[in-house]
Amino acid sequence: MLGLSLFEFENNSDWNEAGPDSVRKANHILYKYGVVDGFGHVSVRCHDNDQTFWLSRNVAPSLVAVEDIIRHDLRGEAYEGTDRKLYLERYIHAAIYKNRPDVVAIVHSHSQTIVPFGISQDHSLKAVWHMAGFLGQQVPVFDMAIHYGDCTDLLITDMKMASVMASELGLGSVILMRGHGATIVGSSLPQAVYRAIYTELNARIQLQANTLGAIKEMSAGESEASVSRISPQIKRAWDLWCEEIAS
Amino acid sequence: MLGLSLFEFENNSDWNEAGPDSVRKANHILYKYGVVDGFGHVSVRCHDNDQTFWLSRNVAPSLVAVEDIIRHDLRGEAYEGTDRKLYLERYIHAAIYKNRPDVVAIVHSHSQTIVPFGISQDHSLKAVWHMAGFLGQQVPVFDMAIHYGDCTDLLITDMKMASVMASELGLGSVILMRGHGATIVGSSLPQAVYRAIYTELNARIQLQANTLGAIKEMSAGESEASVSRISPQIKRAWDLWCEEIAS
Amino acid sequence: MLGLSLFEFENNSDWNEAGPDSVRKANHILYKYGVVDGFGHVSVRCHDNDQTFWLSRNVAPSLVAVEDIIRHDLRGEAYEGTDRKLYLERYIHAAIYKNRPDVVAIVHSHSQTIVPFGISQDHSLKAVWHMAGFLGQQVPVFDMAIHYGDCTDLLITDMKMASVMASELGLGSVILMRGHGATIVGSSLPQAVYRAIYTELNARIQLQANTLGAIKEMSAGESEASVSRISPQIKRAWDLWCEEIAS
Amino acid sequence: MLGLSLFEFENNSDWNEAGPDSVRKANHILYKYGVVDGFGHVSVRCHDNDQTFWLSRNVAPSLVAVEDIIRHDLRGEAYEGTDRKLYLERYIHAAIYKNRPDVVAIVHSHSQTIVPFGISQDHSLKAVWHMAGFLGQQVPVFDMAIHYGDCTDLLITDMKMASVMASELGLGSVILMRGHGATIVGSSLPQAVYRAIYTELNARIQLQANTLGAIKEMSAGESEASVSRISPQIKRAWDLWCEEIAS
Repeated sequence: MLGLSLFEFENNSDWNEAGPDSVRKANHILYKYGVVDGFGHVSVRCHDNDQTFWLSRNVAPSLVAVEDIIRHDLRGEAYEGTDRKLYLERYIHAAIYKNRPDVVAIVHSHSQTIVPFGISQDHSLKAVWHMAGFLGQQVPVFDMAIHYGDCTDLLITDMKMASVMASELGLGSVILMRGHGATIVGSSLPQAVYRAIYTELNARIQLQANTLGAIKEMSAGESEASVSRISPQIKRAWDLWCEEIAS
Repeated sequence: MLGLSLFEFENNSDWNEAGPDSVRKANHILYKYGVVDGFGHVSVRCHDNDQTFWLSRNVAPSLVAVEDIIRHDLRGEAYEGTDRKLYLERYIHAAIYKNRPDVVAIVHSHSQTIVPFGISQDHSLKAVWHMAGFLGQQVPVFDMAIHYGDCTDLLITDMKMASVMASELGLGSVILMRGHGATIVGSSLPQAVYRAIYTELNARIQLQANTLGAIKEMSAGESEASVSRISPQIKRAWDLWCEEIAS
Repeated sequence: MLGLSLFEFENNSDWNEAGPDSVRKANHILYKYGVVDGFGHVSVRCHDNDQTFWLSRNVAPSLVAVEDIIRHDLRGEAYEGTDRKLYLERYIHAAIYKNRPDVVAIVHSHSQTIVPFGISQDHSLKAVWHMAGFLGQQVPVFDMAIHYGDCTDLLITDMKMASVMASELGLGSVILMRGHGATIVGSSLPQAVYRAIYTELNARIQLQANTLGAIKEMSAGESEASVSRISPQIKRAWDLWCEEIAS
Repeated sequence: MLGLSLFEFENNSDWNEAGPDSVRKANHILYKYGVVDGFGHVSVRCHDNDQTFWLSRNVAPSLVAVEDIIRHDLRGEAYEGTDRKLYLERYIHAAIYKNRPDVVAIVHSHSQTIVPFGISQDHSLKAVWHMAGFLGQQVPVFDMAIHYGDCTDLLITDMKMASVMASELGLGSVILMRGHGATIVGSSLPQAVYRAIYTELNARIQLQANTLGAIKEMSAGESEASVSRISPQIKRAWDLWCEEIAS
């Protein structure tokens, strides 16, 4: 099943030991590619303590510096305490890391073309392009109104709500949030960043194709096979992105 | 009701004392984000005299310098007189400041994806995304032709016309003008700038979602709740934008 | 009637005496704003001899330098002869200058969103936005196939074809060419450049609005009134554009 | 027939002797124009041995340097052996060079707006614009599922698959791959690069036009005539692109 088969990357100590500086890079890459703007965040599970994860304090992604990265625990709080302001939706990260031992990195964004699929009543986001097989047959949409009524602020701001969303994500790679954005997981930081960027690109392709009428989406088998095929190629893109934000 | 509840920002003397330099910054930010091009303008109510407001002379937004900012009165004229050319539509600002004591800043723009919603007969702009709850259930469209017949130039060039538009804005945050653009208000300059940028983004999302068929828009309760939630986060974006235009 | 009333600009000797350096600037501006890419061209009637016009040799617009600008005559040839390669479609300029004494500048482009309106069988490009009233009620489409059968290369490469197109342009501001692009005229170089840019922007707005269903376009009276109103404001944009390409 | 008539360029020794440095340039140009991102590749047949071709090792296009370019043979392997990682889909190049002696350069990409036409069941990509007559009446779509069932990874990773695709390309200029991208050929490197860029642009125009309803596409005669007409103009664009990536 898609999403289950999180691909084992080539051994790469940088990747397995992604820490605050990698999170800084990931923030800047996601900003450059329009996945986040002044809002959105990305985290990685700490390799020295898998009950904690690295996530920035509450600051715009493109301004994140190494010293902004704070170790959070699986209750979504600063591991060693802090007087700095934290992201409102840090609980999303905590709940998924708790629920999914296989997940090593998480991106939460409001990526432009993803949001339309979160409010459409007629079309679901799905894998239509070999670069985004990880989306599978249908990306689920988490709708706050179903669980909490129609007067919420559409944000996930405590562990309870986050756990509900994490269980709707299940073993998938991506979950949309109605009227809000998306949360994307990976088995490494580069993979999560790759998936965030290519979810947006797949969404653009699907949206355009839908204006042309009926489409032929990928089959379940094609999605799974292409994830296996493309995953080892992600390093090529990650190397490019790191070089781009360095210059 | 949405629009009424203009959120009380964190105390921030810079914000409460926004003057000519902040207006310069706002102009440059709005240009960078494509809300204005060679046309469009932004003003802030003077904190030392709330019967006056700061607005640039007639010049392209990205070229606005501190010395271009002129104090205008609530009749829409230069407070101390001037021989410089003023914006044709400065009356929009004057009439709204007069009518809405709660309004501290105003953006007038022709922002690309907003205009389609001002001419569409089938779809209204509305809040579909938690970042733009301030749009509420339906953004009104001011149509000059209804008030002045079908031979106007679609611009608001005196206080009379401006007052009619201001009364159609009512207690809302945004009003579209058919075949023209939009006017957006806020309880601070950063909030008005934020709203101008996110009105455009919400419009892009809604436009794309509409090409997919039926959509689930935000409820009235969700709009109101998300405004309260997001407003205190605006500083994060404003800080980013100020840094971007400085470098 | 729209198109007839080419607006008399404020006296501005630079504008009335636009020569090779202004043509260079116009090329660079049109490239920056995506109206031309490696192809497309812009000319201005010579103020010292209105039977001639300035147009670059055959080179990409963004590379045009002052020394590339060649004086052409109204037969579309180099006035003083040249061994340099000329644009294939220079006859478009010659024929319009011959037919329209009021025209002082001409842009020929393949501007992205204009082309769809040249091949659509269901929608015509028209003024829907006060910045583009000069488009009037319906922009004509010149279709080579109607005049020359269905095996042409869709280019206008001699004076005969150019004259046919010039007569279909009539007294209008813009004419589309099916499967090709558009030709836009103005009573000054800045006005022609302005019109080329805002034709593209109006097209984007109309295209988006059309995906939403029925639209309310501008009336004939609104188009005419807005041209009169906006024309004196063009200098503001031109000054911005010149500054942008200088830096 | 379109595609057959690959135009004989002006004699230009640089073009006929395109080697590793030209391939580097082509990679950077295609990246700048969004035809490739971290993925995609471009090759040229070696002028000193037409049974071999120049193609980069497995690296992101915008990072390609001269020393990354490796001579490949028509079995798709490194001519002199190598321990460097090669592109997974290098067989596409090998099979087409083998099958089409007239082809001198090949681009393989996932260009954004091309992919929708590869999954649409209702619309085919076709020439609608005089700059892209080489697309002809209908661009074929190669669908892996028809040949190999619905569990492939949608990539062409051996000579057998590549030969099947090459025979579906036939004598054409472009072939789409369902859920994947496109492969574009030319009789010179600049022509292949030109075609890759203008295939994307034609796709954008057609996609937009299709949202407006029925369109008038180019006739077979118009496509053929415009290829003959435009081909000698490609050098103008190529010179521009080389200058842009140099600065």
